Amino acid sequence: MAITGVMRPGHVCIRVLEIEPAVRHYVDTIGLREVMRDTAADGSARVFLKAWDEADHHSVVLREADEAGMDYMGWKVDSEATLDKLSADVEASGLATDMGWIREGEHPMTGRRFRFTVPTGHVMELYAHRETPGCAVGYLNPDPWPDDMHGMGARRFDHCLLYGDDLAGTFKLFTEVLGFNLTEAVVAGPDEQMIGAFLSCATKAHDVAFIQQPVKNKLHHVSFLLDNWGEVLKAADIISKRRVSLDIGPTRHGITRGETVYFFDPSGNRNEVFAGGYTWYPDKPVIKWTAEELGTGIFYHDRKLNEKFLSVFT
Amino acid sequence: MAITGVMRPGHVCIRVLEIEPAVRHYVDTIGLREVMRDTAADGSARVFLKAWDEADHHSVVLREADEAGMDYMGWKVDSEATLDKLSADVEASGLATDMGWIREGEHPMTGRRFRFTVPTGHVMELYAHRETPGCAVGYLNPDPWPDDMHGMGARRFDHCLLYGDDLAGTFKLFTEVLGFNLTEAVVAGPDEQMIGAFLSCATKAHDVAFIQQPVKNKLHHVSFLLDNWGEVLKAADIISKRRVSLDIGPTRHGITRGETVYFFDPSGNRNEVFAGGYTWYPDKPVIKWTAEELGTGIFYHDRKLNEKFLSVFT
Amino acid sequence: MAITGVMRPGHVCIRVLEIEPAVRHYVDTIGLREVMRDTAADGSARVFLKAWDEADHHSVVLREADEAGMDYMGWKVDSEATLDKLSADVEASGLATDMGWIREGEHPMTGRRFRFTVPTGHVMELYAHRETPGCAVGYLNPDPWPDDMHGMGARRFDHCLLYGDDLAGTFKLFTEVLGFNLTEAVVAGPDEQMIGAFLSCATKAHDVAFIQQPVKNKLHHVSFLLDNWGEVLKAADIISKRRVSLDIGPTRHGITRGETVYFFDPSGNRNEVFAGGYTWYPDKPVIKWTAEELGTGIFYHDRKLNEKFLSVFT
Amino acid sequence: MAITGVMRPGHVCIRVLEIEPAVRHYVDTIGLREVMRDTAADGSARVFLKAWDEADHHSVVLREADEAGMDYMGWKVDSEATLDKLSADVEASGLATDMGWIREGEHPMTGRRFRFTVPTGHVMELYAHRETPGCAVGYLNPDPWPDDMHGMGARRFDHCLLYGDDLAGTFKLFTEVLGFNLTEAVVAGPDEQMIGAFLSCATKAHDVAFIQQPVKNKLHHVSFLLDNWGEVLKAADIISKRRVSLDIGPTRHGITRGETVYFFDPSGNRNEVFAGGYTWYPDKPVIKWTAEELGTGIFYHDRKLNEKFLSVFT
Repeated sequence: MAITGVMRPGHVCIRVLEIEPAVRHYVDTIGLREVMRDTAADGSARVFLKAWDEADHHSVVLREADEAGMDYMGWKVDSEATLDKLSADVEASGLATDMGWIREGEHPMTGRRFRFTVPTGHVMELYAHRETPGCAVGYLNPDPWPDDMHGMGARRFDHCLLYGDDLAGTFKLFTEVLGFNLTEAVVAGPDEQMIGAFLSCATKAHDVAFIQQPVKNKLHHVSFLLDNWGEVLKAADIISKRRVSLDIGPTRHGITRGETVYFFDPSGNRNEVFAGGYTWYPDKPVIKWTAEELGTGIFYHDRKLNEKFLSVFT
Repeated sequence: MAITGVMRPGHVCIRVLEIEPAVRHYVDTIGLREVMRDTAADGSARVFLKAWDEADHHSVVLREADEAGMDYMGWKVDSEATLDKLSADVEASGLATDMGWIREGEHPMTGRRFRFTVPTGHVMELYAHRETPGCAVGYLNPDPWPDDMHGMGARRFDHCLLYGDDLAGTFKLFTEVLGFNLTEAVVAGPDEQMIGAFLSCATKAHDVAFIQQPVKNKLHHVSFLLDNWGEVLKAADIISKRRVSLDIGPTRHGITRGETVYFFDPSGNRNEVFAGGYTWYPDKPVIKWTAEELGTGIFYHDRKLNEKFLSVFT
Repeated sequence: MAITGVMRPGHVCIRVLEIEPAVRHYVDTIGLREVMRDTAADGSARVFLKAWDEADHHSVVLREADEAGMDYMGWKVDSEATLDKLSADVEASGLATDMGWIREGEHPMTGRRFRFTVPTGHVMELYAHRETPGCAVGYLNPDPWPDDMHGMGARRFDHCLLYGDDLAGTFKLFTEVLGFNLTEAVVAGPDEQMIGAFLSCATKAHDVAFIQQPVKNKLHHVSFLLDNWGEVLKAADIISKRRVSLDIGPTRHGITRGETVYFFDPSGNRNEVFAGGYTWYPDKPVIKWTAEELGTGIFYHDRKLNEKFLSVFT
Repeated sequence: MAITGVMRPGHVCIRVLEIEPAVRHYVDTIGLREVMRDTAADGSARVFLKAWDEADHHSVVLREADEAGMDYMGWKVDSEATLDKLSADVEASGLATDMGWIREGEHPMTGRRFRFTVPTGHVMELYAHRETPGCAVGYLNPDPWPDDMHGMGARRFDHCLLYGDDLAGTFKLFTEVLGFNLTEAVVAGPDEQMIGAFLSCATKAHDVAFIQQPVKNKLHHVSFLLDNWGEVLKAADIISKRRVSLDIGPTRHGITRGETVYFFDPSGNRNEVFAGGYTWYPDKPVIKWTAEELGTGIFYHDRKLNEKFLSVFT
């Protein structure tokens, strides 16, 4: 098997202030499908969602809470053996805190998850098993897209961009312990200190990214995949038609080349839908963005960061 | 490293009847860049080409010969150790013939290559090293595309579709020895015998595909990657503007979902440029196409195979 | 007013063999909206439809009949005075036959219509009044597209291509009496006889086209407007998803530059959805297509007429 | 002839501070072609340009001057008789000032022009003749686009948006004397006073637009036509690749539905390239935008005016 270890972002648990408006947003606007609901151990309501092109049972969990943000991000690994090995490696690394196992079934149709906190304060999980009821077009002579597309029609949960204060530590954990690769780096100062790291566990331009900021455990955005730039326009139109709060776009990122639009869910969590990019391979040289071109890297057309980009997160 | 073993198709060597018209086609029409020329050991002229988004020194080799077709397809593996292991595994498998090493430097800026013939008669190579002079936009604050795009502006050499008579043997070699995965299968008859296999070594919907046909070592098409459906239209327009021989398209494949156009180089080798598809993961269920829907699988809009698809190859 | 006389194709009445499958096709597949139903004077069922971006009450009429084809095509003129003048001009021209007035109200919310048969055998109508209940997004701070788009989401009834035997006579009537302009001409033979005429009454590349064929009163296709090439792909996908009979496409026309797909309604009438083209002005030189390039003119990528193009019509 | 009177915007004369950087911008960035150069009567350098899909000799004139802005906009009418009539009508209207004839040949290959100043202070011209050397693909079996496309590849000079203080007067002159139609109106206040007027002389959503502002004779932007939203992205990429000053976009206008990007030429004149929109007919209801939705009307995704939109003009 050519893809081993951590395969992909498998789920993200997002805290929302009110569950029903959040579900309407992620279903009617972004185009996810509600799979099931339950109540978390602490009594909070949870709703499990998936995108139409995902085989797994779910990929997005909305949890009602007093504060917006990200509870945790989960990574699917290739096998139980890998799960055992990587959890032991994380423990042995001395880089993670608050480590422990979540029992099988705490997420529906999902095996045990190893949970740990990385140096930037974000909670990550590894797991090897989730049932795959299948994507919306099935696997026998499938159509290229389903009949019941709605809203933006997002295809997959794709990645998160996260803000935190110990980028070096988190970078070390993801690359040296979990086997991620650096695809693009933002560097600053005469010694080219890394202030932004875009990390891939397979062949995408990024599966997760971290930006150095003097905060702990903050979510910049949760991102979903569209097919093309035409769908990005349609998504931006839907944002206006439904009076969703727009952040910026449609535009292109310099970093990853993605075609993108940013907006907010009703609780203030930033979402992205995007298309494009490139196929990354382990022998591709790392792309470097210098601080003076960071604006171009983030928003290729505007060539400057807007104030919200750095100051608004959950 | 999450991608291990065979990483991707690294080169294809195409036989052409006359070198200059072939170069004009692959450069001016498809949009590749000529990297260098040399003379092969047997005295035939060779031209090395690359696409604008590839880091490696070259990916396409044109060799002047009396008959069109494919000399061999090369696969880049992640390390010399993998190369040693996989070459030994191929030898031990008893599935390959005509095995041997090609010396370092026989391809420019490229290390030793292990060459072998698979049961369908196709010549494959494994190699671990090729220098990476870099892609056309570089790796420091790069633009999303280069200033000197031309022709169709193909981004990468992507895959080949090959015809041969012992699909079962080649399938066994690629999956059990080389670590490829079956993404989509065409099956026929009451026992659902596999007559078409789409194989991935990383996360693309296919890196190579084989169709069962009563021939040995035949090339159906060599395929190059475009960015989107708009570029497929532009490519089709260029085909007509330059009076290139069109095969079919623009259309969509059911298999892989790709948006595509097929055409021929001046020697009669079929080319494809395509966009779209999906990201494949090892836990994705295999897609199955039944023989009665094969037409839809190949050409999703026409829903039938044209005569050329099965009878024209090199 | 800069647009005077005949403004645009206002309606087409299509004969269908069974009304319900036809309605499902034009509504669910093409994306029109059913406006109302009635019974024609001869007892046949009629269904009135419109596209989402049309202000007028209706633009397509389906009439149940024993034979497929086009009953008539209607042209909206700028005023009752123009209607009086043009009807008198048609009568005086000696070029039309079977002339007469259809009473106000025979089409719902529509004034009197002047009906006549042109030399190629097609029945045409002129009318000045139809109520305009409005398009689907309204006229007060409108969104760019409506929430209830469905199927291909066609925007307008755009034009018809018609086959008939006296092209010269029909051409004379449309240009000299009705004020149409020739935008593109297909010519054949040493004396460049016109065998195809693309005619515009305003600024579109064509509002109606006639091809010289040894038949009377035949419909080649009824065409509807999409927004872009991405929507043409979506339309072609829908054709396959719904197992509609495809004719050809997606492709581009050389004539008019349109991006197109042809298919058939359940009664065998050919439909087109298309995008693109150019803005025509009266001082634009006429484009000429020679017979040897007619294939390229019709299907720009294939560069040849398929057999169906000339032999299948209703 | 169904299009009569004023047909279209035929030229715009733009003042630039330095001629060579301006030519590089309009040619290399926007994609126009330089046609010829001369010296105006006052000794200033002039460069005549055209877009690839225009038949006329030229459509854009750059004139070197001490201050940026628009010298005048020219309108092509259908005939010398119309030119005589409309010039007399303008004179008789009492709405224009500084009227007079510019001699034949003052613009190359162009007949006499009637020049006048409208109440908002803008200089307009009417003319009936300009030679038509033809567009870049010709008129005999033409390809859909030329081989020598470059930069953004703009197809046509499309329209201007102008700022001025007597909107009512200019509106009256354009609609009552010159035969333009109001397609979309921006209204403010309890009595719905018109503060923005989008005017069409044929079937485009606008050929010129005026916004009420307490200034005289100001240019907001000169606009050029692209084919689709994909070309808008390419244009925005080129803006960044060439370090052109971006204003806003890519985005959509609510007014006219256009897909757009705004940027500045080296002298500070705002340019637009855009695609999309709709076909306007004289019986289409006027679209009304209320002041509270003006932001959505101008920038559909942002839903608010940026400061530059109102304060930056030349």
